[in-house]
Amino acid sequence: MTVDMEIVCIGNELLIGKVVNTNASWMGKRATSLGVAVKRITVVADNIEEMATAFHEVLARKPRFVVTTGGLGPTFDDKTLEGIAKALNRNLAVNQEALDMVKAKYAKYAKTRNIPEGELTPAQVKMATLPEGTMPLVNPVGTAPGVRVDVDGAVLFVLPGVPREMEAIFEASLMPLLRSATGDVGFFELSLYVDNLMESVLAPLIDNVMHENPLVYIKSHPKGREGTPNMGELHLSTSGLPSENPQERLKKAAVQLSVLMEKTGAKVVRSET
Amino acid sequence: MTVDMEIVCIGNELLIGKVVNTNASWMGKRATSLGVAVKRITVVADNIEEMATAFHEVLARKPRFVVTTGGLGPTFDDKTLEGIAKALNRNLAVNQEALDMVKAKYAKYAKTRNIPEGELTPAQVKMATLPEGTMPLVNPVGTAPGVRVDVDGAVLFVLPGVPREMEAIFEASLMPLLRSATGDVGFFELSLYVDNLMESVLAPLIDNVMHENPLVYIKSHPKGREGTPNMGELHLSTSGLPSENPQERLKKAAVQLSVLMEKTGAKVVRSET
Repeated sequence: MTVDMEIVCIGNELLIGKVVNTNASWMGKRATSLGVAVKRITVVADNIEEMATAFHEVLARKPRFVVTTGGLGPTFDDKTLEGIAKALNRNLAVNQEALDMVKAKYAKYAKTRNIPEGELTPAQVKMATLPEGTMPLVNPVGTAPGVRVDVDGAVLFVLPGVPREMEAIFEASLMPLLRSATGDVGFFELSLYVDNLMESVLAPLIDNVMHENPLVYIKSHPKGREGTPNMGELHLSTSGLPSENPQERLKKAAVQLSVLMEKTGAKVVRSET
Repeated sequence: MTVDMEIVCIGNELLIGKVVNTNASWMGKRATSLGVAVKRITVVADNIEEMATAFHEVLARKPRFVVTTGGLGPTFDDKTLEGIAKALNRNLAVNQEALDMVKAKYAKYAKTRNIPEGELTPAQVKMATLPEGTMPLVNPVGTAPGVRVDVDGAVLFVLPGVPREMEAIFEASLMPLLRSATGDVGFFELSLYVDNLMESVLAPLIDNVMHENPLVYIKSHPKGREGTPNMGELHLSTSGLPSENPQERLKKAAVQLSVLMEKTGAKVVRSET
């Protein structure tokens, strides 16, 4: 059974091209490594309506997991929890456990800087104001807690947008859950770097090998130009249990493809797993 | 009137985190620079059903422009035109104009390599097989033509995934159209790099300045950790006609924000436009 996931990234900076979405690729890679099928990535603005619409749509597709990043901080543009509350039709309220987490962070910061510990400001309390019926997640490196929401059979993880904070919570809170959902299934990949090949000559060879090896997915990544036979990467991937020998499956397909390509004058320069 | 755009990126490599989606940020930046509002980025797999569903959803939101990248090449995983045909309920057929473009490319390649010009292979003809009622776009640097689809008041541009090809068609075919849609509207931005600031202290100051300057959007990008006052970037942006003095608007807000921040002990180290 496929364990599927959707990713939702929130932030105007992603839409205006100020920031490249490395969070999505990082999460995609980590989840895929455990055999999770990442089905879609959606990027929306810091806008409650846009977010609520997107979350509605995502949850309607019934993925097993949803991860969202961005919009958990103290500033006005951090609206993700409001967007989720609206999408789920739940109220927002200060969550005592989250408040304790935030308080502990500021107490520690005050101590480090040797200043008196003050009351939390409204901007700080905002980070502990969660949709009702949700669970805060410890943020090992930053201030805003992550949030876990269980809804309609899906588990939604709400993570900060700062990469090192997102990664820390993802590793600590998500990976164990994803690992137990996929069991021993793993994702395996093998790249063939090929010289002197044209993609359109390659196309029927890939068809042939994929037909013979239906569990292996082959994708060509041309590096040069179609007109001048050039270096290209052929990326072979498969998922499976160790007992199914997925690595052998990949190797077999890679050998078949190499033989066919070399007949056309192409040359496999190296392979990489 | 806002001219809005959605971006759809197609490719398993984006979902599994093998490739970072720099196409989306490049397009987002170029469109934003003309005052276009990029509302959403959607990434889906090389799967006809997934694509057709996504295109349906995107078109139902009635954006003025849609740009999609990826899946136009000769290999089996290049399925974008099939996905669009399915979404629009149109047939696929060889488009003579597109076929002439593809033929001309291969004739040129053959000449360059001093080999006889052969018949196009099925994989090569596939790049000229378009949904009916669409228009091929010259690809100045690669083989697969781009495609323009006019549907329900939206203009959908279908571009290759190879960045230099996507960029060339975007510049040649999209930019003039976007420019004439937004007229003289431009997008302006200004960054303040600030030292010794905590994001939660900053939050009410941003609220204050945005309230006074409703056309200016301010977003904070923390670089350090909340606990240790550190370097951060405050990104101010606005759109407008030259006659509205959008740059002056930005400067005014930046000065107000700088004065407020400096009262809290933060220090504006430099500003950048």
